[in-house]
Amino acid sequence: MEYKPVSELQRILACLPEAITDAFNQGQPANYIPALAEVDPKRFGMAVSTVDGEDFTAGDAREMFSIQSISKVFSLSLAISHMGEELFQRVGVEPSGTSFNSLSQLEYENGIPRNPFINAGAIVVADALLEYVSSPKQDFLSFVRGLSDNIDIHYDESVFRSEFDNGQRNTALANYLKSFGNLKNHVSRVLDFYFYQCSLSMSCLDLARAFRFLAQDGRHPFRNESVVSRLQARRINSLMMTCGTYDEAGEFAFHVGLPCKSGVGGGIVAIIPGKMSICVWSPELGAKGNSLPGMRALEYFVKQSGHSVF
Amino acid sequence: MEYKPVSELQRILACLPEAITDAFNQGQPANYIPALAEVDPKRFGMAVSTVDGEDFTAGDAREMFSIQSISKVFSLSLAISHMGEELFQRVGVEPSGTSFNSLSQLEYENGIPRNPFINAGAIVVADALLEYVSSPKQDFLSFVRGLSDNIDIHYDESVFRSEFDNGQRNTALANYLKSFGNLKNHVSRVLDFYFYQCSLSMSCLDLARAFRFLAQDGRHPFRNESVVSRLQARRINSLMMTCGTYDEAGEFAFHVGLPCKSGVGGGIVAIIPGKMSICVWSPELGAKGNSLPGMRALEYFVKQSGHSVF
Amino acid sequence: MEYKPVSELQRILACLPEAITDAFNQGQPANYIPALAEVDPKRFGMAVSTVDGEDFTAGDAREMFSIQSISKVFSLSLAISHMGEELFQRVGVEPSGTSFNSLSQLEYENGIPRNPFINAGAIVVADALLEYVSSPKQDFLSFVRGLSDNIDIHYDESVFRSEFDNGQRNTALANYLKSFGNLKNHVSRVLDFYFYQCSLSMSCLDLARAFRFLAQDGRHPFRNESVVSRLQARRINSLMMTCGTYDEAGEFAFHVGLPCKSGVGGGIVAIIPGKMSICVWSPELGAKGNSLPGMRALEYFVKQSGHSVF
Amino acid sequence: MEYKPVSELQRILACLPEAITDAFNQGQPANYIPALAEVDPKRFGMAVSTVDGEDFTAGDAREMFSIQSISKVFSLSLAISHMGEELFQRVGVEPSGTSFNSLSQLEYENGIPRNPFINAGAIVVADALLEYVSSPKQDFLSFVRGLSDNIDIHYDESVFRSEFDNGQRNTALANYLKSFGNLKNHVSRVLDFYFYQCSLSMSCLDLARAFRFLAQDGRHPFRNESVVSRLQARRINSLMMTCGTYDEAGEFAFHVGLPCKSGVGGGIVAIIPGKMSICVWSPELGAKGNSLPGMRALEYFVKQSGHSVF
Repeated sequence: MEYKPVSELQRILACLPEAITDAFNQGQPANYIPALAEVDPKRFGMAVSTVDGEDFTAGDAREMFSIQSISKVFSLSLAISHMGEELFQRVGVEPSGTSFNSLSQLEYENGIPRNPFINAGAIVVADALLEYVSSPKQDFLSFVRGLSDNIDIHYDESVFRSEFDNGQRNTALANYLKSFGNLKNHVSRVLDFYFYQCSLSMSCLDLARAFRFLAQDGRHPFRNESVVSRLQARRINSLMMTCGTYDEAGEFAFHVGLPCKSGVGGGIVAIIPGKMSICVWSPELGAKGNSLPGMRALEYFVKQSGHSVF
Repeated sequence: MEYKPVSELQRILACLPEAITDAFNQGQPANYIPALAEVDPKRFGMAVSTVDGEDFTAGDAREMFSIQSISKVFSLSLAISHMGEELFQRVGVEPSGTSFNSLSQLEYENGIPRNPFINAGAIVVADALLEYVSSPKQDFLSFVRGLSDNIDIHYDESVFRSEFDNGQRNTALANYLKSFGNLKNHVSRVLDFYFYQCSLSMSCLDLARAFRFLAQDGRHPFRNESVVSRLQARRINSLMMTCGTYDEAGEFAFHVGLPCKSGVGGGIVAIIPGKMSICVWSPELGAKGNSLPGMRALEYFVKQSGHSVF
Repeated sequence: MEYKPVSELQRILACLPEAITDAFNQGQPANYIPALAEVDPKRFGMAVSTVDGEDFTAGDAREMFSIQSISKVFSLSLAISHMGEELFQRVGVEPSGTSFNSLSQLEYENGIPRNPFINAGAIVVADALLEYVSSPKQDFLSFVRGLSDNIDIHYDESVFRSEFDNGQRNTALANYLKSFGNLKNHVSRVLDFYFYQCSLSMSCLDLARAFRFLAQDGRHPFRNESVVSRLQARRINSLMMTCGTYDEAGEFAFHVGLPCKSGVGGGIVAIIPGKMSICVWSPELGAKGNSLPGMRALEYFVKQSGHSVF
Repeated sequence: MEYKPVSELQRILACLPEAITDAFNQGQPANYIPALAEVDPKRFGMAVSTVDGEDFTAGDAREMFSIQSISKVFSLSLAISHMGEELFQRVGVEPSGTSFNSLSQLEYENGIPRNPFINAGAIVVADALLEYVSSPKQDFLSFVRGLSDNIDIHYDESVFRSEFDNGQRNTALANYLKSFGNLKNHVSRVLDFYFYQCSLSMSCLDLARAFRFLAQDGRHPFRNESVVSRLQARRINSLMMTCGTYDEAGEFAFHVGLPCKSGVGGGIVAIIPGKMSICVWSPELGAKGNSLPGMRALEYFVKQSGHSVF
């Protein structure tokens, strides 16, 4: 498996999305939130950020979109940087086999979510984080802005409000976790923080840059410091591989073969350890909630660049 | 099966609780709410109210206690009187096979609670009632006071607050129901009403009187009117038989053989259709949440009076 | 609730099935076994056997049909007569809330079936019986013949073979029970016995007579002996009330209000404790597996005769 | 991530098992089969087979042991070589989230096993294979012998018989699959073949060699042919990563970071795509059924050689 020179990356990106035209018109943008449903379904952007500090982009790579569940990696990383493996006494590290917002699994396993990328797990992570940050939203935003080297990242007020208005199932999950003693803060405070995280708007370029620390053993992409340790970066990457794409992790491991995390806003980030981080965005989702053009683009990219781990 | 003359009833009651002394010290009062945990576990009261209008009592039959889930029969009756069978489009009529506060069943059955006596079902009933009553709490209280012919019935403020403070699982259930579209009002409004119902304090005598309408084809015990129709009374009685005592309905059907409804405050009501209504109270609960001395007392009463339906 | 004189019974039966004509053409005969699917769906029979020893019949009351799950009451009665309450260490007495052939419940409850009327429970009962009978099939047949006072009762060879050929789910259940240690005999021996029981052919009159012991405190209908004790008869009746009609026990308790047991052959038996036993048969089943005309006929009978327990 | 020269491999292996002494005495050999329980728990062997055709060994690498679930990769590979992706209409490719022998998942998903590495999935694969091989056991054995270049590989008669004697849960699974129509052959024929596969005895060296085709894009280790296509090899590797180690795939992805498949005989195989295949064996299992010393040895090997994919 010979790797193509970096100069090839721009060429590969340039062929997208033409190379994957048949992946469009197959899915539907998320419609549970008006702000997501209104996005033009034909948008497509992609960005790559290498460990050498070079960025490559294609299409709408600078367009802001709602990161949704991709935020779960930021909160997990921040929590792990504070607490280390202790976090995993409150949330597991195994695939769930049930849908991302299932309550049944919690019932059978006494309030311990299967992993930090299902909603229940991310809500526990948000609760854990509240113990370590003084101004949660501000600190979280600063963390993400620092990783992206972009102070123009904001949260989307209308998305945030919609999350609240449509968030009954997450409210159910949070109260259920509370009933098991696995939330320490007030449910409303935890959800306020959790929904805030989901409603950040970022571009493919922002996300590709922000995730680069996972491609370079935890080192910050723009500062001379570590975001997480080398081992912690590996923990996060392995969780993305086994649990990062909802109930479709098996298909992603096969077709893409990289640690990935997706969001219902249509974004997907992927990590090539030691080499680069990637973000693709296109709003049309498949039945499992992952961007169909995005998945296809990653598959194409991996095939052309020879970068699958398998 | 010859029935003993009514004059025998007082004699049977007089033998209680001596006849069931070995049923004490076997269980524990409910402890999830301080107000319940503080009750003297040795209290025992019983009352019978016949369709002829006679009342018989034993022990602490005039002592007020927290009716808890027994309130579910009042709210169901009130809802049925307004909506009839239409209510059962939103809540089922079958035993659940899972614990009274389970969320899993809802997940597999798309937000339709199995019956109105599990918490999820009673929350749906509370929501349905809100459509028909202008001053929910006041109207509910008036309804119960009228059935008991006792204007000194009140709700217990400390119990009500405790329900709220410890009500995360019910909050989870309510939000989950809302996410399926099976609550029409705001979750907090529904829960406020639901917790209010649970926190009423009544005596055995109050409850025996209040339930008499179910022993006399729906006719009000003290007014010349019907609370529910004859068929509706039968619906409620049959639900009490199959679903009225949490996950122990099978044992109750065998040992008591009457429609019953229990509450974790230690109260149990039972109906002998066409004859009388009964209420027993004693705080020590068994593993399934039913009063152990209460269950034993009903078994003794049925045996002595010859009133099982089987 | 005044009871009509027994002489009325024949008059009520005579009005059936005309009184329930609109209950036909609503369902489907069982089709998983050819022998069941081939039965004329318009057949209807009914029989009543009173504790005074009188029998009343209507329609095809002497026509033989496949008793299927109704046999579960015979095997339960026989097992209880040998073992008493000890049997209930291996099988529960509560409604299951899941379908009659579910395996999931067993998984969560470590191989203890919820009650003896779901298939898993009946298979455990068959296994338990094998410890007490020397010639299982012969002894079982003799027991049923004795209860019916009819030596012409036989099992149906073609039904028996079909049960085996289509019995994968029951084979799965039996092996699963075995894996939990809740079967003591070879799976094939237990299933051979279990399928045999299900494949008995009997008429409404046979069944009404055979079930009379449950209406008369366990006393044999034709011999001066007890089939089961008074308390055991009550246990069986209460189980029929809460668990006897698959996932429709709640509806039966409401519409019929009597202990019932149904089979997918279209038969339903019902008990009026202290008075009589009833059997109705008509092959068209509703969605839950109970005969629709049969259920309606029982409802009509109860209404006309004033015999509901509620 | 610099890779150590191949000459380093022998040095790393030489340090094992001394480097992992504290991983012993923590677990228990499998005890459901006498033949497994009798193995000396202190045995430890490891073998590496590189794509250059070099083999490296340590400890008891030539000792035969029961491969158990490792056989699932052989049958999957053989089935895929015959049917390709068509196989995945009958078995999924996603982690199950439930234990390896769960029946509940099948109930909720209508008889489609979640993946080919849980027992239900492997039984479906065995059934599918029966359509393509004329002498199933012989062909399977020849396939494995060819991959290992060792004609002395045999199945263990006593293990095979024990599998049958203790195989009630697998028999339950097979019958359940049959009831959903997801087995085409007789249950006994499928299980006979499935248990045969599990009861093969092989050494670490045999397995390391036999799995080398998955490290070299599907090419046979000893013949000028393809076992499976490049894409099929990737499918198998990705399934091993997400589902290969029972309910511990998440921990393996983190600690080992390679596609792995384990068996309760204490063996674990791992693939480093493009480089080598590895097999380690030691009988003491952890709570999830994976060899504790084996898992630790792989972690050590990956750390020393720099070969994690993350």
